[in-house]
Amino acid sequence: MKNYSKIGTSEEARTELHDKLGLTGAEISINILPAGGCVPFVHSHKQNEEIYAIVEGEGAVVIDGENIRVKAGDWLRISPEAKRQFFASEKTALKYICIQVKAGSLEGYTMNDGVVSN
Amino acid sequence: MKNYSKIGTSEEARTELHDKLGLTGAEISINILPAGGCVPFVHSHKQNEEIYAIVEGEGAVVIDGENIRVKAGDWLRISPEAKRQFFASEKTALKYICIQVKAGSLEGYTMNDGVVSN
Repeated sequence: MKNYSKIGTSEEARTELHDKLGLTGAEISINILPAGGCVPFVHSHKQNEEIYAIVEGEGAVVIDGENIRVKAGDWLRISPEAKRQFFASEKTALKYICIQVKAGSLEGYTMNDGVVSN
Repeated sequence: MKNYSKIGTSEEARTELHDKLGLTGAEISINILPAGGCVPFVHSHKQNEEIYAIVEGEGAVVIDGENIRVKAGDWLRISPEAKRQFFASEKTALKYICIQVKAGSLEGYTMNDGVVSN
């Protein structure tokens, strides 16, 4: 595999990066819900922790029945087993990044995994 | 552990989310290089694949000696062993997200890991 891969992104409703970038440790999607829209189902995960970054707009996520308001700049971690559903507000579209990783998979990071060359 | 965690982000030079969100499958940092600035060292990783999202501005990343221009909207995957260094352009700050995950750790995802509740 090449030592890197790079793509630009467009304004599609959903862009999935795993295959486009050749990811091996995560799936990442970029999602846009129109104003008043929502993900049309509730879901959880078997193994994967999900991390969400709210990029633009505002809305809410219902997690195990709890309604949590979200806005641009917010980040969330959601445990695999939690049942979740995202909603855009009535006034703004909601653009967010969703990062799926296997819960508990990270070993070292930054100072414990990085190697400085010079 | 609670079924979710949530934070807002500020405009600091570097914000690390692992401890703030209780992440177990990734470390994520939000980074801002000022115009004309750069990460002051070259680095690689032992185990971790890195995924970068360029959020604002433009600049370049040198990967194993190759100079790659980047701008807002670009995403990159970089293999653990590749030597990398990020630079902001002379004219704009460069804001980017860096996601560290263990290379090869993802098993199922989306349709193979998600469970729809209704």
